[in-house]
Amino acid sequence: MMATVSLISDDTASAEVLAVFNDIRATRGTDFINNFWRALANDPALLAATWDRLKHVMGSGTLDPLVKEMIYVAVSAANGCEYCVHSHTAAARAKGMTPEQYGELLSVIGIAMQTNGLVNALQVPIDPEFKKD
Amino acid sequence: MMATVSLISDDTASAEVLAVFNDIRATRGTDFINNFWRALANDPALLAATWDRLKHVMGSGTLDPLVKEMIYVAVSAANGCEYCVHSHTAAARAKGMTPEQYGELLSVIGIAMQTNGLVNALQVPIDPEFKKD
Amino acid sequence: MMATVSLISDDTASAEVLAVFNDIRATRGTDFINNFWRALANDPALLAATWDRLKHVMGSGTLDPLVKEMIYVAVSAANGCEYCVHSHTAAARAKGMTPEQYGELLSVIGIAMQTNGLVNALQVPIDPEFKKD
Amino acid sequence: MMATVSLISDDTASAEVLAVFNDIRATRGTDFINNFWRALANDPALLAATWDRLKHVMGSGTLDPLVKEMIYVAVSAANGCEYCVHSHTAAARAKGMTPEQYGELLSVIGIAMQTNGLVNALQVPIDPEFKKD
Amino acid sequence: MMATVSLISDDTASAEVLAVFNDIRATRGTDFINNFWRALANDPALLAATWDRLKHVMGSGTLDPLVKEMIYVAVSAANGCEYCVHSHTAAARAKGMTPEQYGELLSVIGIAMQTNGLVNALQVPIDPEFKKD
Amino acid sequence: MMATVSLISDDTASAEVLAVFNDIRATRGTDFINNFWRALANDPALLAATWDRLKHVMGSGTLDPLVKEMIYVAVSAANGCEYCVHSHTAAARAKGMTPEQYGELLSVIGIAMQTNGLVNALQVPIDPEFKKD
Repeated sequence: MMATVSLISDDTASAEVLAVFNDIRATRGTDFINNFWRALANDPALLAATWDRLKHVMGSGTLDPLVKEMIYVAVSAANGCEYCVHSHTAAARAKGMTPEQYGELLSVIGIAMQTNGLVNALQVPIDPEFKKD
Repeated sequence: MMATVSLISDDTASAEVLAVFNDIRATRGTDFINNFWRALANDPALLAATWDRLKHVMGSGTLDPLVKEMIYVAVSAANGCEYCVHSHTAAARAKGMTPEQYGELLSVIGIAMQTNGLVNALQVPIDPEFKKD
Repeated sequence: MMATVSLISDDTASAEVLAVFNDIRATRGTDFINNFWRALANDPALLAATWDRLKHVMGSGTLDPLVKEMIYVAVSAANGCEYCVHSHTAAARAKGMTPEQYGELLSVIGIAMQTNGLVNALQVPIDPEFKKD
Repeated sequence: MMATVSLISDDTASAEVLAVFNDIRATRGTDFINNFWRALANDPALLAATWDRLKHVMGSGTLDPLVKEMIYVAVSAANGCEYCVHSHTAAARAKGMTPEQYGELLSVIGIAMQTNGLVNALQVPIDPEFKKD
Repeated sequence: MMATVSLISDDTASAEVLAVFNDIRATRGTDFINNFWRALANDPALLAATWDRLKHVMGSGTLDPLVKEMIYVAVSAANGCEYCVHSHTAAARAKGMTPEQYGELLSVIGIAMQTNGLVNALQVPIDPEFKKD
Repeated sequence: MMATVSLISDDTASAEVLAVFNDIRATRGTDFINNFWRALANDPALLAATWDRLKHVMGSGTLDPLVKEMIYVAVSAANGCEYCVHSHTAAARAKGMTPEQYGELLSVIGIAMQTNGLVNALQVPIDPEFKKD
């Protein structure tokens, strides 16, 4: 697999890009910068905006960070995004996902995909009981 | 919205279908049978197989049932399945999802969709560091 | 549901559009022109090109026309295209699809969606045995 | 391409997993177990449930097994699932799909994708004539 | 169609939400606030972040604002997002999209969907000539 | 990555296929035939129909050819079609897409994907103001 752009190494990064790379390192407590950020770095403004948003959303809140990673994996699997599946499955494991939890995540993805297909094929009308109030 | 099939009422349901409807009622502690099952009931074997699987997967395990519902919503939003989004958002609320948790669920779906699109456009090569071991 | 364009009635159709409408009628043996063609008719060249291709592909060949309609429904369900699901499910029924065949079509769509999701989540490497020769 | 999990070989499989592998072998009349099942085998219950369902759905019924495989390929292509496309195209060929049939399958997938996109862009309202009765 | 949340009117909006609404009004030169923002307003932080990003991306740059709206329509049609198709088709028209341009946009969406499906079904290997340099 | 079919070289191409290959060469002003056409060439009629349509749509009209390529990339990224993303990103560059334009294209894809996901999750009702007239 090859990217549509060059991956920006630390050596070729501008000061603006390096500042984002260093915030990624500080936030995650690791020197490792994965390829997504090195590809995005071709457009420093897009890199900064994407990292700022991801850092904010995936950080602490009312949902457990592991739960957020599993939701991320689910969206990425539905969209067939290989890289995203790999990076967020790895992140979920780094945050403690057990094999049992992973098996359940896969099972929910599987049944959701299945019923999504059935509902789209059957065009089921929405029950008024689902109303928000 | 109209379905591609008739919705099977209790009055027109076969004994096989009624048995599934009654298990849905007993499992959920409500008399309400939503339209998805009434549409699927046109094929009693498909109804039974789908309900058995969904009941098993969404039941208790190592992941919280609310977390499973949120994962289900995420997959359904990525697939653009309107009915599924409505039914599982309602289910998540019934299981205690707060507005704050819902806002975070939406935020994760949003950033995941965004980076899925960026990664697919950039064709980012998978880092060897994501390897499972 | 409202379209993004006006639907072109026979009264407002140009001669070029009417010629396509009449070929649709002659090919299908009915006076009915469904909304898809009336929407496309805002761009007569796109209307003609789309109808020519669809007429050619869905006509007789080595695959049974009913099989082609079921494949069309499957793609449309996977893509969540409501109108396409409705129009091609109706077409499949007009070509003789029985309730048993429809139940099996739905079952295949369901299991395919499910394993698509699982495979995308697991990133299963392709077996060399699948090679074409 | 690497999986997110280890592929379970016969040597490392539990008795529960081996029982499923052997049923796959007996059902298909071959010793070959493709990687999808070896990946799923990390969760023996998910492996068993998925195989049981797939075996049931793809087995004999009112639709020809080859037709079912072609529908499976169509869903998998719409979802962009590489592995699924490869495995079910190989299965369709093993069940006798000719080059002419494959060309027609591809043509239907192509026109369906095209009109799905046009309909989604035009938001065509559903004709009341498509009603099921 | 009903939303999963209440739509926030100006009367019930917090000061934080009203500030975003007013920036939307000022930026667009109209009093009209469309439902997307009124739905998002249930989570004021998500509303603000989404509007800030959209305002920045869709504003002036090297690509014509009309071109950006057409790209937005294309993504939304591929994803089957009805609301997004409607809102951005309306926005494209407001920015001067002619019927001829719209017909060409639809034609590109159609051929792209078609070849996406063919390529996904054929699993075409990427030519080394596509390399970025 | 391997295709599901053999790639047809000039040496093994029929006269019908060679005629299409030569029209591709003449139209593009290059000897290079990319793999998509060599894969499609297994079905000469599908090859000819697809090339005729693509040549017509992507040729000159009211939209700039570069704009058409960027729309093509956007659809392909939303659908996760790797080959299509690569081939049309290369085509856009060949037609003069600058890094700044590419960064804006990526930014629009990103925000569109994000709001598609949010809208699908929120099920926002369509504003009557979006009506075409």
